[in-house]
Amino acid sequence: MPDEPAGRDPQPRDPRAGDPVTGPVLVVGVGLIGTSAALGLAAVGHDVLLRDRVPENVRTASGLGAGRAATEADDPDVVLVVVAVPPDLVGRVVSEALLRHPQAVVTDVGSVKEAPLREVLAGPAAAHAERYVGSHPMAGSERSGPLAASASLFEGRPWAITPHPRSAPDAVELVESVVRVCGATPVWLTPGEHDRAVARTSHVPHLASGLVAGLLDGAPEQHLTLSGQGLRDVTRIAAGAPGLYGQIVAGNAEAVVELLGDLRAQLDVLIATVSAGDRAGLEEILQRGVRGTRAIPAKHGGPPRPMRSVWVSVPDHQGELARLFGDAVASGVNIEDIRIDHDPGRPVGLVELVVDELRAEHLLTSLEERGWVTHR
Amino acid sequence: MPDEPAGRDPQPRDPRAGDPVTGPVLVVGVGLIGTSAALGLAAVGHDVLLRDRVPENVRTASGLGAGRAATEADDPDVVLVVVAVPPDLVGRVVSEALLRHPQAVVTDVGSVKEAPLREVLAGPAAAHAERYVGSHPMAGSERSGPLAASASLFEGRPWAITPHPRSAPDAVELVESVVRVCGATPVWLTPGEHDRAVARTSHVPHLASGLVAGLLDGAPEQHLTLSGQGLRDVTRIAAGAPGLYGQIVAGNAEAVVELLGDLRAQLDVLIATVSAGDRAGLEEILQRGVRGTRAIPAKHGGPPRPMRSVWVSVPDHQGELARLFGDAVASGVNIEDIRIDHDPGRPVGLVELVVDELRAEHLLTSLEERGWVTHR
Repeated sequence: MPDEPAGRDPQPRDPRAGDPVTGPVLVVGVGLIGTSAALGLAAVGHDVLLRDRVPENVRTASGLGAGRAATEADDPDVVLVVVAVPPDLVGRVVSEALLRHPQAVVTDVGSVKEAPLREVLAGPAAAHAERYVGSHPMAGSERSGPLAASASLFEGRPWAITPHPRSAPDAVELVESVVRVCGATPVWLTPGEHDRAVARTSHVPHLASGLVAGLLDGAPEQHLTLSGQGLRDVTRIAAGAPGLYGQIVAGNAEAVVELLGDLRAQLDVLIATVSAGDRAGLEEILQRGVRGTRAIPAKHGGPPRPMRSVWVSVPDHQGELARLFGDAVASGVNIEDIRIDHDPGRPVGLVELVVDELRAEHLLTSLEERGWVTHR
Repeated sequence: MPDEPAGRDPQPRDPRAGDPVTGPVLVVGVGLIGTSAALGLAAVGHDVLLRDRVPENVRTASGLGAGRAATEADDPDVVLVVVAVPPDLVGRVVSEALLRHPQAVVTDVGSVKEAPLREVLAGPAAAHAERYVGSHPMAGSERSGPLAASASLFEGRPWAITPHPRSAPDAVELVESVVRVCGATPVWLTPGEHDRAVARTSHVPHLASGLVAGLLDGAPEQHLTLSGQGLRDVTRIAAGAPGLYGQIVAGNAEAVVELLGDLRAQLDVLIATVSAGDRAGLEEILQRGVRGTRAIPAKHGGPPRPMRSVWVSVPDHQGELARLFGDAVASGVNIEDIRIDHDPGRPVGLVELVVDELRAEHLLTSLEERGWVTHR
């Protein structure tokens, strides 16, 4: 899909000049994602309509400036429907939208793409499937509800667009324009590729985290006192809502089961390797994990830059943390990530600052000059 | 082990009154842990001797105030040896220390306890094993080397003490005093219990993280663009040094293999559950993971307090982060944890602040009054 040409205009451009969205946009399901998309579209002047099975949500979202409540009179005019309902309902609501709004392109924003597509192609709206183009923004799913929404939720985030073979080109173009209006970066994948990708980057990691956390359930309390930051990191996502993740995993069962099979095969090799006392084999397995961590994209895109952590002792007073930040800022070094090492009873906290490897020494020197106790 | 009585003295107490350490302390292996223990002991006035196979390390640690280079003339006087060498060498170095310093109690600070103990009991110093009491401080293992050391490294941290059946009571008491001098909290476990505990809280989580990360190695780059914060959290510890972790896992092979077997059994149930479309079963597995996350001890000990996250949009300028901190501090709400949501191309960062659930609304209101864009 070609980008729109960026020329220099003497007058300010109408942000909607050449915009393929030429009428009202309907958002069905005004939770976090739906409301955020609505806010993004309303911000550039689109007429946004809101529908939700809970009237209170519509009032809330409308009050935030996300749009107005949809009425039956709007039905024929709608040119785009964004379906943002829970995973189990996507296929059905997409089909309903294709039938109810004959002028409209329909997209959904769910975490899985193949299952809802299959449902649409097997359902009452199958003949209209050319107007359906699925998509999936990678953004803030651990929060929920319209109050958590923001027009900038998708800025700079990847937003997968997953046309199927029958999707009409102008339908695809329209969905792409929505993605760009919301400030996101399109990532083009088939529905099947998408589902296999998120099985690997999201669903299986979540399930693995849950299994590791599950091993802690019922463990002796005294054993659990030997917990550190590593354990907290591995198990953090396992705290997420079982109801929602159950729907997501079930909706991507095929890709998830296949990858879980790969995981089990790797686990079998690991068990055999450790049992046999094969040190070289064990290090090879660990090294593969190290390579995997380096494959994850870094901040601001581009090849991952090597990062380095520096640690600073911070007396456990909140003012100290702010002071540290001010001093880190003054050093001119960009802080990529922060972690507070918090364990029971620490009067002195340890703050971990992650910075570009080439800037670490400068940061350390800067902080030491200002009296901080640092650790490499 | 009874605490020393705390009375009110009109004169300042000698911090070493009643101290069971009545002579020089030798630290063998002046890496992060060894040097930090040395600094802690030197800080209360003990005569600390340093030994390492790399003379440079001894010079460095000594320069930091951790002690002086050990000489042969010191050998008969040493009353305590702290063995802080890599996992593979612990058993042998403990045995050597028991033989070389007949007056000394010997402890080690390694991540696994049974394997070195077995080696000592089967080795040339077996007759002196009553003077050996293993221990293991839970502290900062991702850094390394004497320059990273700090006398406060162990403050408020758990430090496991793992006497074996033949350990002499006065030897145990002496090791406990070292732990307390370093500001740590003793956790009493048998060597076997300890190893099973860290298999569960540290080794198996690390290996699981490595397997999940390993699945990313060689994956299509486009698929990896769909990576989020959850994946980064799960795989973070997998970036750690394969050489060291290989030694640790190999040294705890029995407990690790047993628990990996439990993990595989759980994985089999998960695969069957998802394959069968058993939604209730899947939610039960996920719910067990949620319970597991709640079993991890919280900051400052005591029962885990329910936490809540609030998110704040922060323009991607470092000064803004410091400003946010200052405002969070001014609100009076204690920040338990911070996470910066960093993904490619975000011009607006999202900072997650984790606070006590009961204080979240107050923090949000405070920040909003100061102009921050917040998200629940």
